[in-house]
Amino acid sequence: MTTVRRPGPTTRLRVEEHRGEDVRRHEDRVLTEEPLEIRLAWPGAPARRVWTTLRTPGNDFELAAGWVHHEGLGPVATVAYCTDVELRPEQEFNVVTVTLAAPPARVPQQLDALSAGSGACGVCGSDEVGDVLARRRTPPWSGPLPAPDLVRALPDLMRPRQELFARTGSAHAAGLFTADGSLVAVREDVGRHNAVDKVVGARLLAGAPPGEAALVISGRAGFELVQKAVASGIGALVAVGAPTGLSVRLAEAGGLALYGWTKGERTVRYV
Amino acid sequence: MTTVRRPGPTTRLRVEEHRGEDVRRHEDRVLTEEPLEIRLAWPGAPARRVWTTLRTPGNDFELAAGWVHHEGLGPVATVAYCTDVELRPEQEFNVVTVTLAAPPARVPQQLDALSAGSGACGVCGSDEVGDVLARRRTPPWSGPLPAPDLVRALPDLMRPRQELFARTGSAHAAGLFTADGSLVAVREDVGRHNAVDKVVGARLLAGAPPGEAALVISGRAGFELVQKAVASGIGALVAVGAPTGLSVRLAEAGGLALYGWTKGERTVRYV
Repeated sequence: MTTVRRPGPTTRLRVEEHRGEDVRRHEDRVLTEEPLEIRLAWPGAPARRVWTTLRTPGNDFELAAGWVHHEGLGPVATVAYCTDVELRPEQEFNVVTVTLAAPPARVPQQLDALSAGSGACGVCGSDEVGDVLARRRTPPWSGPLPAPDLVRALPDLMRPRQELFARTGSAHAAGLFTADGSLVAVREDVGRHNAVDKVVGARLLAGAPPGEAALVISGRAGFELVQKAVASGIGALVAVGAPTGLSVRLAEAGGLALYGWTKGERTVRYV
Repeated sequence: MTTVRRPGPTTRLRVEEHRGEDVRRHEDRVLTEEPLEIRLAWPGAPARRVWTTLRTPGNDFELAAGWVHHEGLGPVATVAYCTDVELRPEQEFNVVTVTLAAPPARVPQQLDALSAGSGACGVCGSDEVGDVLARRRTPPWSGPLPAPDLVRALPDLMRPRQELFARTGSAHAAGLFTADGSLVAVREDVGRHNAVDKVVGARLLAGAPPGEAALVISGRAGFELVQKAVASGIGALVAVGAPTGLSVRLAEAGGLALYGWTKGERTVRYV
């Protein structure tokens, strides 16, 4: 019988630290990064690969459920590690199958990529902002929003719960907060988008609606992050870093309050 | 006749800045973020979509050439904006066709995704590190490497050339340096991986070999960044942020010197 070690979220390794003329050799801890393949199945359809992401192992079912939700593919029935006989043992925890309750609202783009030689394509004739709104399956947030002076404090309220960041100095975090500043859940990952998928997926797997008053992210608020916040009916997206031109346009169209550069006494609302 | 405004790398917009009790309304500048669709053609084959990335407009041909090279798809003959009659005018500068000199060494994964329901898939049975080495079309760097005390200085040497960072505070940069610390080229983008594709693509479009003694990146050194450095025969990858467990393994297998946490007097070599 083969025993497979499930990969942990951090990895220890040897380093050579140079500081001025001083050189020290010691052990250091970095984030684990491994591919996670997501397969999608629905009643009457065999599982097929739809996406692969490089992620930090842990909360894999949440990541898969959140990703499927953010892509607008429909309600998730079950999530399980794949038991494909062709999988090598060390890949056993790197493949997850999400089974939908019903056929997906649309077939993920990657699956119909063979049509790419035709006139049907991703960018041409499409409208990124309109596409996101058309796929949204959760209504916009209609509850109370955190006031700007509370918004400023949210990253500091999240930091004590960023365990992987404390251990490696390099993990991104995503946290859901109520309008009065209570932390509902936080998840960490090497990828910003994965952290958001995980924290929203945790809500979905618990049977709760994905939307919440505020989603705090430790990095920048690019298009993909705003897309997920809009898809989940978040009230305010609060980023420590900057947004982009496209993400500001999407937030405005999607009814999402967008804050960037949130640190210490400062936050900037993009209106 | 329709005049199309080519999108610039930054976008001006209104913001509401909260600092303590003070609220100021003013204009701010953020990075532009727009999709770039890359189509691939080769003799006897019509162009087909192979990838879409969210990028900061500018140096699009370099980005496309660098991406195709880093994917190991073969020598690039020409790069051009797509003139598809179905493109809306505002998308004209968001679609690029790369024509290879010969059929690609492999068909990009996205194109054969319809086989995903079969046993052939991305993660299962594959080996990320081995795959990268098998696709490498450029020999590993065999020239001199920068000494650690020069490595420490490289991010500071790159910063004066980070124009988009100076204007927005949020652009990632990638710079190629010789072993004695001369800056060969620097490129910036909202995405770290795009910045690396651009700076290597610039070399390729100039007819130069892609490899150089050092590649400096302003962020973290995850798997995808190390993958590109190995694919281009870079000598040392110098990151301001952290590597991951997988990226350290790949760098070791690929003969790439990997430095993280490079700032001020400090750098950490992962050996």
